[in-house]
Amino acid sequence: MQPAAAEDGYELWLRYRPLPADQRDRYAGATTQLVMPTPSPTLVAAKDELLRGLNGLLSQQPAAVESVSAPALVIGTPQSNAQIAQFDLGLKGLAAQGYVIRHRPINGQATVIIAANDDVGVLYGVFHFLRVLQTQQPLGNINITESSRIQLRMLNHWDNLDRTVERGYAGFSLWDWHKLPDYLDPRYTDYARANASIGINATVLTNVNANATMLTAPYLEKAAALANVFRPYGIRVFLTARFSAPVEIGGLKTADPADPGVQQWWKAKAAEVYKFIPDFGGFLVKANSEGQPGPQDYGRTHADGANMLADAVKPFGGTVIWRAFVYSHEQPDDRAKQAYDEFVPLDGKFRDNVLVQVKNGAIDFQPREPFHPLFGAMPKTPLAMEFQITKEYLGFATHLVYLGAFYEEVLRADTYRPRQGSTVAKILDGSVHNYARTAIAGVANIGTDRNWSGAQFEQANWYAFGRLAWNPMLSSKDLAEEWVRMTFSNDPQFVKPVVAMMMKSHEAVVDYMTPLGLHHLMGRGHHYGPGPWVEGGPRADWTSVYYHRADANGIGFDRTKTGSNAVAQYAPPVAAQFGDLKRVPEQFLLWFHHVPWDYRTKSGRILWDELVYRYTRGVDTVREMEGTWQGLAPFVDAERHHEVAAFLKIQEKEAKWWRDASIAYFQTFSKRPLPAGFAPPEHSLDYYKSLEFPYAPGHH
Amino acid sequence: MQPAAAEDGYELWLRYRPLPADQRDRYAGATTQLVMPTPSPTLVAAKDELLRGLNGLLSQQPAAVESVSAPALVIGTPQSNAQIAQFDLGLKGLAAQGYVIRHRPINGQATVIIAANDDVGVLYGVFHFLRVLQTQQPLGNINITESSRIQLRMLNHWDNLDRTVERGYAGFSLWDWHKLPDYLDPRYTDYARANASIGINATVLTNVNANATMLTAPYLEKAAALANVFRPYGIRVFLTARFSAPVEIGGLKTADPADPGVQQWWKAKAAEVYKFIPDFGGFLVKANSEGQPGPQDYGRTHADGANMLADAVKPFGGTVIWRAFVYSHEQPDDRAKQAYDEFVPLDGKFRDNVLVQVKNGAIDFQPREPFHPLFGAMPKTPLAMEFQITKEYLGFATHLVYLGAFYEEVLRADTYRPRQGSTVAKILDGSVHNYARTAIAGVANIGTDRNWSGAQFEQANWYAFGRLAWNPMLSSKDLAEEWVRMTFSNDPQFVKPVVAMMMKSHEAVVDYMTPLGLHHLMGRGHHYGPGPWVEGGPRADWTSVYYHRADANGIGFDRTKTGSNAVAQYAPPVAAQFGDLKRVPEQFLLWFHHVPWDYRTKSGRILWDELVYRYTRGVDTVREMEGTWQGLAPFVDAERHHEVAAFLKIQEKEAKWWRDASIAYFQTFSKRPLPAGFAPPEHSLDYYKSLEFPYAPGHH
Repeated sequence: MQPAAAEDGYELWLRYRPLPADQRDRYAGATTQLVMPTPSPTLVAAKDELLRGLNGLLSQQPAAVESVSAPALVIGTPQSNAQIAQFDLGLKGLAAQGYVIRHRPINGQATVIIAANDDVGVLYGVFHFLRVLQTQQPLGNINITESSRIQLRMLNHWDNLDRTVERGYAGFSLWDWHKLPDYLDPRYTDYARANASIGINATVLTNVNANATMLTAPYLEKAAALANVFRPYGIRVFLTARFSAPVEIGGLKTADPADPGVQQWWKAKAAEVYKFIPDFGGFLVKANSEGQPGPQDYGRTHADGANMLADAVKPFGGTVIWRAFVYSHEQPDDRAKQAYDEFVPLDGKFRDNVLVQVKNGAIDFQPREPFHPLFGAMPKTPLAMEFQITKEYLGFATHLVYLGAFYEEVLRADTYRPRQGSTVAKILDGSVHNYARTAIAGVANIGTDRNWSGAQFEQANWYAFGRLAWNPMLSSKDLAEEWVRMTFSNDPQFVKPVVAMMMKSHEAVVDYMTPLGLHHLMGRGHHYGPGPWVEGGPRADWTSVYYHRADANGIGFDRTKTGSNAVAQYAPPVAAQFGDLKRVPEQFLLWFHHVPWDYRTKSGRILWDELVYRYTRGVDTVREMEGTWQGLAPFVDAERHHEVAAFLKIQEKEAKWWRDASIAYFQTFSKRPLPAGFAPPEHSLDYYKSLEFPYAPGHH
Repeated sequence: MQPAAAEDGYELWLRYRPLPADQRDRYAGATTQLVMPTPSPTLVAAKDELLRGLNGLLSQQPAAVESVSAPALVIGTPQSNAQIAQFDLGLKGLAAQGYVIRHRPINGQATVIIAANDDVGVLYGVFHFLRVLQTQQPLGNINITESSRIQLRMLNHWDNLDRTVERGYAGFSLWDWHKLPDYLDPRYTDYARANASIGINATVLTNVNANATMLTAPYLEKAAALANVFRPYGIRVFLTARFSAPVEIGGLKTADPADPGVQQWWKAKAAEVYKFIPDFGGFLVKANSEGQPGPQDYGRTHADGANMLADAVKPFGGTVIWRAFVYSHEQPDDRAKQAYDEFVPLDGKFRDNVLVQVKNGAIDFQPREPFHPLFGAMPKTPLAMEFQITKEYLGFATHLVYLGAFYEEVLRADTYRPRQGSTVAKILDGSVHNYARTAIAGVANIGTDRNWSGAQFEQANWYAFGRLAWNPMLSSKDLAEEWVRMTFSNDPQFVKPVVAMMMKSHEAVVDYMTPLGLHHLMGRGHHYGPGPWVEGGPRADWTSVYYHRADANGIGFDRTKTGSNAVAQYAPPVAAQFGDLKRVPEQFLLWFHHVPWDYRTKSGRILWDELVYRYTRGVDTVREMEGTWQGLAPFVDAERHHEVAAFLKIQEKEAKWWRDASIAYFQTFSKRPLPAGFAPPEHSLDYYKSLEFPYAPGHH
């Protein structure tokens, strides 16, 4: 049947719909011929994409020629295309997978050249060229040089072998393990195309809470089948390694990294993996964290564990990515300090094919966190960024929150290590510490939902993540605009208000969930909805009261000298600012300080009133977003308009739930009335506490 | 992006693609005008469907008129459409939701009238009319009268609240409980359209292994949102009731059906459900079976339990469907006998709004089973059929097995109760025992997979189930042809070989899995792949050795007088046939008899050789199917052709696995060589026994 919803978002930003006639004619006139030999699967994929795009956007199929005799596209590498070898196009300085797009006359004809040193660069150049057309940019004197400073631009899938996805809100895992390796869902190809179009070149297929079965031969064969699909698109497959695998599937009695039998087991296992997947990327490891096994089980350090695996994959060119997200509940200290304390002493002790992957903040993907103090603090150890694209702590898929703005905030934060200007982005791209390896990872928000990400606007977070991983200096606002133009419409009457809505959406969710530096206040386990009252249970740092510390006097976590002194983990100028109640950015006020209820904030309101004000502002912003979207119906297909509108309605309801529940709870400490004009919570605190969500998605 | 696979099977059999020009002109000439008032949501849905179909098939939009002045369609009920009220169309004798399609001149114009007594009948008539066009049947003197003898034509979804599906091989549950009731996925509408198109008018949303949370207000609100979507399509929502719900969510200390507090709780709960869903269908209950709670926990009978629930829903017109699939491992007797022994004594003791739902056979949806001895044995209790559409025991979605042929075999089986000619179909439609209520249920094979059913050809089983539930006398071969024509192509060069392939597919799977009446030989727990060696564990009747009873002498379950005497549960003529080694149909030979390895079968081969022959024939048939399909590439889009070909390859591999593993295992008893020319198993028995599938789908 013709589906009830013709536009369902499956096409993502690669929506090659016909351009307006004037634009179409201009572009079509410039692309009448094509010189593009295709001696490799990647170049075939690039050509297929180009033809698909030109056919969709321009209803044009350029004539394949060997010599240019009309306005043309000339595409390839100096090796694959003799026409390209003859020009000095500035390819020398490009990093791997970089590309140029240049305007050059050939045989007296205006020609656009898309060139790179390697085939994947050509593919990327083709996607960039199509983006130029999709966003209706001038082709006239096109002169683009693109070269990423980040080598590994990765998705981390927290996908389990039963196809559930930890913290996944877009259906279930794309990987249909049961039918692999024999059946290759066409969607795997579309996944690879989408990632390649934004420069993502690595994917970790499996959950960091790892399953040793993944490393058995039947599953390696399945992973190899996926790797074969992804390879032409420049995407390398990584897997998570369960540290105790030698015991669980190897029949050994120990997984001690100092044990020669264990070392030998991993060497043999690595050799086996590379037999299945010759360009296997390597292992991502979560060890000694939240119940996962690790080297500390045997009295060894994280470096000991990482190095053993690094030695195993080294002969094959593999990489080990070791997560810094570790904390022990036995340690009485502030959880925010533990990764730093654990890893800084290990700086310089890792093999050269190890990266340490650090979450953007020291707690865990909260709506807003200050940048992680590890960034800048390990000059001898390449640090990778771990962002979360999936919205574990941000209301799941139905809350419209554009994370590009937050990624940019973190990437541009100044670590002051070793000096001012050493932004997180510059730590990551290696320019500060001369890292030989660089990487940015994002925890994927992709699943079997037809729209891939659980919501139309969630696609923007995947998009922005990939583009920022390629170039961390990009503006999130520009990326939002690119995405809106490609995904919905180039009409400025649509683009402008939608970009504005996206750009304020992150502040909105911070307002209605965790204003002024509050954090970790969500429902227990599933992380859905407000739970500032969460206390008790197996460990203090899995409660909310551990973090907000509200009492009759005030609220907030004192991380200054008088408290946990977590501020001291930052460079002195940053520590001085964060540690000073007068100078700390108000967005981090309660992250670093325990502040009296009647403390006068910058607005002139006392803290309690300011909290209420911000909670309410968050809800109001969502209502504004709803109004904006309602007015934009003429510019977007009914199907996607309806879905977004329905989700905004859910977001408004849940924003109000967060506001009302939080105010009801904190008022039991502040004992203060709401400021005049602010509505009281709709229900009693007991009501909010009584709500249960045993089947919230993403929690298994 | 344009999906890599343009044809993905989402459209099912409602694939309204342009007809060949000559057909199109003929139909278009007959449908130039439309008289169809739409005073109800159902009639709006019918008209939308008609226009969608005519637009797709004929590129035609008939002119909406009030009075016919050219060849026209006139559609509606006598109430909604005055033009219809004037004719005697034979509506009087129709059952609910029946319809007619007649040719009548109006104002001198050739007119096709689609009419019914109720709006859902009109919708059904529209779907039938579109099917006539899709399958390119002549319109000339169209004269159709359709009236179902089965009142409830139901899907049973074994869907859990976390969206996993027990025995589901098509992804996960369609019901996105987290986003309900606020977001209504457009797919819910397409689900309703597909079901209405084949006459399915009831759906049980939740697993028979039930969860009491479903009966709490938040979930009832979600179910109500689905019911609102389905209502215009004539589909009523049922839910499974967990018998212990009064304890689990009601705070009571007991769920004893004789307890007045429990009775009161269910009455109040029923009232609450009907407040949410005014046309709620009722409860489906699995009780005292495989660990589910039930009335026997309190020393009460199944009738006591069913009647308590029946009393609760009776004031609202609700029905209770009580499953007869019960067996106790404490009972030492043959599992095949237990449902009969349990339920026959209860005949006449159920309230008049109770149906007892009986699986097609006495074990559990095996590749082939003789009909359940309960059919015909409960003249005072309406019995419903439970077929399985999902292929729990049939290799999951990737095995092409057309179940229509097997449904027909069961429906046409003669119970001889009270006399010859009392087929299972006539028991079900009430004509034998004058049942006041009639129902046929199918365990759904539908999930989030884009193609709905996990495989293109699985759609045929959904289709055939629905059509046979509407009319159990239909020919499964005719239905296969209808489905092929609607889903793929009307070209006889395609239709004929594909229908032939479908019609032999069920015999093939029986051959390579469980020939000659063998049964219950699959892998433990997940039911994937062969496991004839399965023994031990918590209960004997969950092993394979319990059923095949192979020993040095022979193989098979003696269910004659010398054994469990299960044959005695059938009517005497049937019992005499099944119980006689010479007269038993060979397809049930080892179901009823323990037979020596050297027993001479009808082919002249001894039993062991015949077993090997049939296992091998099954594999060979799959290879033939592959060859047939390869040759049909010109008639079908590349995407669906590729998927089917890939799955047939998997089926061949797994058919061979079944054959080889079964032969390797049974040979340890028969101690005989394979007949000449038959290849030995590829691997050792130990190899087959060593295979593990911890993440096989459908098993949670």
